[in-house]
Amino acid sequence: MQYREFLTDAVGASLQYEAPGGWIPAAPPECIRLHTGYPAPSLVPVDQLAKTMADVLEGERDLPLQYLGSPSAARLRGCIEHLMGLRGIDVSKDLTLVTSGSAEAIDLISRTCLDAASVVAVESPTYMEAIETFHNYTDQVLSIPIDAEGLRTDLFENLLVERKSRQLQLPKLVYTIPSFHNPTGVTMSVERRKHLLQLASRFHFLIVEDDAYGELYFANRPITLKELDREGYVLYLGSLSKVIAPGLRIGWVTGPSTLISTFDRFKKDLGHPLVEAAVARYLELGDWNLRITRLREAYRRRRDVLLGALTEYMPADVTWVEPQGGYFTWLYIPGVNTLSMLPLALAAGVSYVAGEHFCVHPKDGIQNLRLSFSYVDEQDLIRGVQRLSDVIKAARRLP
Amino acid sequence: MQYREFLTDAVGASLQYEAPGGWIPAAPPECIRLHTGYPAPSLVPVDQLAKTMADVLEGERDLPLQYLGSPSAARLRGCIEHLMGLRGIDVSKDLTLVTSGSAEAIDLISRTCLDAASVVAVESPTYMEAIETFHNYTDQVLSIPIDAEGLRTDLFENLLVERKSRQLQLPKLVYTIPSFHNPTGVTMSVERRKHLLQLASRFHFLIVEDDAYGELYFANRPITLKELDREGYVLYLGSLSKVIAPGLRIGWVTGPSTLISTFDRFKKDLGHPLVEAAVARYLELGDWNLRITRLREAYRRRRDVLLGALTEYMPADVTWVEPQGGYFTWLYIPGVNTLSMLPLALAAGVSYVAGEHFCVHPKDGIQNLRLSFSYVDEQDLIRGVQRLSDVIKAARRLP
Repeated sequence: MQYREFLTDAVGASLQYEAPGGWIPAAPPECIRLHTGYPAPSLVPVDQLAKTMADVLEGERDLPLQYLGSPSAARLRGCIEHLMGLRGIDVSKDLTLVTSGSAEAIDLISRTCLDAASVVAVESPTYMEAIETFHNYTDQVLSIPIDAEGLRTDLFENLLVERKSRQLQLPKLVYTIPSFHNPTGVTMSVERRKHLLQLASRFHFLIVEDDAYGELYFANRPITLKELDREGYVLYLGSLSKVIAPGLRIGWVTGPSTLISTFDRFKKDLGHPLVEAAVARYLELGDWNLRITRLREAYRRRRDVLLGALTEYMPADVTWVEPQGGYFTWLYIPGVNTLSMLPLALAAGVSYVAGEHFCVHPKDGIQNLRLSFSYVDEQDLIRGVQRLSDVIKAARRLP
Repeated sequence: MQYREFLTDAVGASLQYEAPGGWIPAAPPECIRLHTGYPAPSLVPVDQLAKTMADVLEGERDLPLQYLGSPSAARLRGCIEHLMGLRGIDVSKDLTLVTSGSAEAIDLISRTCLDAASVVAVESPTYMEAIETFHNYTDQVLSIPIDAEGLRTDLFENLLVERKSRQLQLPKLVYTIPSFHNPTGVTMSVERRKHLLQLASRFHFLIVEDDAYGELYFANRPITLKELDREGYVLYLGSLSKVIAPGLRIGWVTGPSTLISTFDRFKKDLGHPLVEAAVARYLELGDWNLRITRLREAYRRRRDVLLGALTEYMPADVTWVEPQGGYFTWLYIPGVNTLSMLPLALAAGVSYVAGEHFCVHPKDGIQNLRLSFSYVDEQDLIRGVQRLSDVIKAARRLP
């Protein structure tokens, strides 16, 4: 039987794109995993989470195992709003919806705001899972280059003006990771942030601000678009994936109540009360500032080690971003196709994510790759860069 | 600012329907909760789950807290396929996708198969969350009456023939809970099941078989539509919500690979590895038959107590279903509007779910209500029925 006919036309069209996870390199066990955007295993608070999980089940018995009724789970939203306050964000005029990671928030936004007629704009490069999600709902995904100051709002303005003059559909949403951007590590300047907000007001689009890395700054805390937003154009996405652990699947979206309550209809009761209860108790331990300070220091050290190794070992024409926070840097390797080089790298015992996976138009990232300094320890960061440098030199010697 | 304009037309149209959770009665703390479709607190294996959760974190450390990498979580699908085998279902020609409860499975099916042009058919009455989910994607939800033998396939056939002759859109999906139906407790006869499969073949629609209660039979195991399906029209939905605990949010959908892999694209990495790992270990304890036998006995006793109390205390013209499994029975109370009566019942210390919440056309359920015998203990079942009987009599005396 042909099952394709049961799918909607829009879904049928989305099947043209690569299936999820296609970007994950087949890294053998002993490989130094510079592709992995996970927190360092040593920085995941396993024992504390095991304790709060045990406490929840001991104290609340079956309640967190039913759909509703766990007092701890019910407090999670308040805990998250408290974290938002620590980030300088006024949550009083908005609603916050807890989601299954920011991935679910991106999906809920897409599901409710995008159909085949809709246009969405993203940075180039950007978080590959966001591209995948948008492509599930529309093939009209515009990409705007970024440079060392983030999204090129000047180019975006030109594009908007041109589309308007040609009576083309304008984007409904722009998705951006303004601070310690995935995959590049770049942070958007304050001037660009203000310009982007002006454009939102002038051309009437929503800004989806993905701030998964915002708290992991190494020097100064970047101001969020949400803090600068006077007119209500920003949907702010937060996540505990990078600051506690991604497997908890705790993210959130904060924004205008009309939109958030619509997302909630589509989310239904798909929360995870047991995990939510344990995480609420963990956040209530009250040592958040201590924890986040420790993370900043640890990841800054890893960043320094990685950049030091790149300087020492990379061929002279290879360039990279010096991230001021987050997990990633982004290499530019002139003349090398990073996807073609990947099997060589894996064979040499080092992995990365090829740049084209982060681009709506794969050719835009063909000479780039993403390195993560979050997951492997300092010694392996150095060994990984040495191996990668050798692989690049070898790739260039190939016919 | 008007945010409605950012929503798609289809989503804007869906906002006409009641928001999720509107059916939940505002039961005060001391109320006997006959509305609650949760497992009995004493039958939720809190301590064993606490132990497997602790074991997972002790043994796998950060792995189940990252996105991927937990060996236990990776085994969950196999554990579920084993359970399917115990239910007599051959999983070898299908794929199984673990979902966040069967609610996510219903949503994934809707998201990929339904748009505003699509027609879906449901039983009347049916699981209210399914109606809510379908209404998020289309307002063309047809409802087919059920009787003591389940879905009236004869009426459904008439409807299909008529729609075809009038060149109206035929349903793409029919959603059914054939065994120990929510809310009525009815089980579809084997003849009707075979007829429904014939209709699927003749009119080319998918059958979504929600079997959340199928293992909780009190006498004989009902054969599933999936087992009878020779042509591949059935998407089978399973769940651990009723046989372990709903807050785990573990369900699944089993069906043809073309459809399942499409659902997987839309699901993305929204699994919950920590819970999935703990549940896999729990299922691997190997005492499933013992556990499920104990559940059947406990819920059968509660069913008997409830039916005994109904016989003893209800006014003579009130009728109900005698369920052969599951959690629920369905009362018909001639001349009483069960939604109007609900505040009286809550004031008298007993709750139920008014019948109209389970109906696409609310008036179809206006004289019905759902009682759950799963959640409260035997003594409270009796007291709850006594109170409800008094409330019915009082409601009938009102002008």
